[in-house]
Amino acid sequence: MALINDSFLRALRREPTEHTPVWLMRQAGRYLPEYNATRKRAGSFLKLCKTPELACEVTLQPLERFPLDAAILFSDILTIPDAMGLGLYFADGEGPKFERPVRDEAAVAALAVPDPGAELRYVTDAVRTIRQALSGRVPLIGFSGSPWTLACYMVEGGGSSDFRAVKTMLYKRPDLMHRILAINADAVAAYLNAQIEAGAQAVMIFDSWGGALSDRAFQEFSLAYIRRVLASLHTEREERVAGESGEMVSQRVRVPSIVFTKGGGLWLEQIAGSGCDAVGIDWTLGLGEARARVGAQCAIQGNLDPMALMAAPEQVQAEAIRVLESYGTPSPGEGHVFNLGHGISQFTPPENVSALLEAVQTFSRKQRASQVSAPSL
Amino acid sequence: MALINDSFLRALRREPTEHTPVWLMRQAGRYLPEYNATRKRAGSFLKLCKTPELACEVTLQPLERFPLDAAILFSDILTIPDAMGLGLYFADGEGPKFERPVRDEAAVAALAVPDPGAELRYVTDAVRTIRQALSGRVPLIGFSGSPWTLACYMVEGGGSSDFRAVKTMLYKRPDLMHRILAINADAVAAYLNAQIEAGAQAVMIFDSWGGALSDRAFQEFSLAYIRRVLASLHTEREERVAGESGEMVSQRVRVPSIVFTKGGGLWLEQIAGSGCDAVGIDWTLGLGEARARVGAQCAIQGNLDPMALMAAPEQVQAEAIRVLESYGTPSPGEGHVFNLGHGISQFTPPENVSALLEAVQTFSRKQRASQVSAPSL
Repeated sequence: MALINDSFLRALRREPTEHTPVWLMRQAGRYLPEYNATRKRAGSFLKLCKTPELACEVTLQPLERFPLDAAILFSDILTIPDAMGLGLYFADGEGPKFERPVRDEAAVAALAVPDPGAELRYVTDAVRTIRQALSGRVPLIGFSGSPWTLACYMVEGGGSSDFRAVKTMLYKRPDLMHRILAINADAVAAYLNAQIEAGAQAVMIFDSWGGALSDRAFQEFSLAYIRRVLASLHTEREERVAGESGEMVSQRVRVPSIVFTKGGGLWLEQIAGSGCDAVGIDWTLGLGEARARVGAQCAIQGNLDPMALMAAPEQVQAEAIRVLESYGTPSPGEGHVFNLGHGISQFTPPENVSALLEAVQTFSRKQRASQVSAPSL
Repeated sequence: MALINDSFLRALRREPTEHTPVWLMRQAGRYLPEYNATRKRAGSFLKLCKTPELACEVTLQPLERFPLDAAILFSDILTIPDAMGLGLYFADGEGPKFERPVRDEAAVAALAVPDPGAELRYVTDAVRTIRQALSGRVPLIGFSGSPWTLACYMVEGGGSSDFRAVKTMLYKRPDLMHRILAINADAVAAYLNAQIEAGAQAVMIFDSWGGALSDRAFQEFSLAYIRRVLASLHTEREERVAGESGEMVSQRVRVPSIVFTKGGGLWLEQIAGSGCDAVGIDWTLGLGEARARVGAQCAIQGNLDPMALMAAPEQVQAEAIRVLESYGTPSPGEGHVFNLGHGISQFTPPENVSALLEAVQTFSRKQRASQVSAPSL
């Protein structure tokens, strides 16, 4: 199905767009009353993730409200370790936990790459269902946690503030750590390829905990395995698109990849050079500086502080415009996708999201129009 | 009293030292059984902080065990807001909390700079007691939280993972935020000056939550107020030192300052240019890069990942040597103080601290000796 709004994919391919395309990490989530209603109906968060029709329903909810330029698969970051048999569960009021964390040599030896067509079939089914429901309105993003980020949860058995268990293994038994990461990398690649096969039009790797690593450990234990995933990705997929005379024809289209290391601003050039099409940036790095450092290596996605959405609507708009001004107007061969620097907070007033999107689309359109008519061009 | 080991102060003044001086953030703490015994005897953590003799006892404990090159005042980061009347308390198994968080205009209007000679007298008493007990073995570091970091706790009412309350105020009511920060800056300056007056030979500002801010917000809401503190510090104090013929004479000595913004690697040059004598660095930034970026602007302190201390002693030593190699040997006008990139974990085996210090002192001595005899000099 031909895309009606492909501005997001064009920005990732670093082709010109009329405005800065925008989507929001965790855009289908608890700040939306309709999401909470569906989740309640599902009975649990995991049930919501594992039922393709419900995952499709919540994926589309933010698109009904807001003029977003992309949809992102609704799923959990920990589907892979769950499929490995670690027993994912959610304790009331706490984050995700695993019944059987990977703490010793025997547990590491027992790990294997799950079959995305079997244990993770519910995810590819959701991708197919969502693609159909989207009808080409906007592209669908697939995603996975990075090998290192998955390892953090697998070894810690849940969230952590100091990463003591996983870092103890890293420093004490780097051989075990590398074994886990190699399996995770193969699992993430197979998982993302299955999502691409099922219809994902772009993929994003969330390296949420890469920023907890030291310089040197980041390159060795996170970035090296992100590279391995990227090198194994099927970067093209067959799509039915409108041919020159309007008939539908098959065409190979590129599936761009985005890598987002939270707290990875110091390693920006290295991440941008990992083989991805775009690098996600959190709010600690100004986009002007990011753009100067990345150059024409890849596109940039980011980076409003999600907490800026807690202010009044006109203040939210002023902050969004500051982000756009900080980036400037993309030159030929550059691309910018507007996003938050992290997932949207569950406490965000939905009307502030409307205000944000309006500011991004209106202001960036003006920015680009004035750029085109500038005497210097 | 003349200092027996002044390597720490010399490194901060960027004068040559025979080895890389070393101390550890939170070196007096729960990883030491003798600390836990004193704390138990005190009855509570706050009682321990507020009783100068006990604070002195635990400050000296790590120096009895390890050949550390500096002592740091044992105290809490939240003494200032406690002295402001916010009601600091520690709930069992949780971090610090305030009974009366600063959430609205009225609470902000009621804030005032506490008198370090009155409400915070127990801190300056502890400094005096510790100086006497140290007898000049090593210098004593005084410290405070940064204005922004104190504001985080004051507005949140405790720790936070998303800083929602304090950032909502920042984005929605920047006027209130600036008012709190101005008061905090004056309070921190008065507090550190009182510590210097009482005998602190260096001071450190812990900007533990500066890294949670966006670029632009960091400069406006954290760094600007750190600058304000530094500009108000009494950078010299009167010390009794040995004169040329051995008799004790009074001398003005410089009191160097260290600024540590956790997660502040992206803003390194700006922090180094804030007026401090040294900048603290966490493990996300390689010391080689840090040194190149800071140049001869100020000294550098850091940056081993505290979790590296969870490995076997020989692995701890290998990691320490990597940090030293990453820095290299200081050129004239440069200085390096070895430290962790954050506080030592309560789960650290004390024998690993011995192994660490031995590696730092032995290896850095060799490094410097070989540098001196190198043909290039």
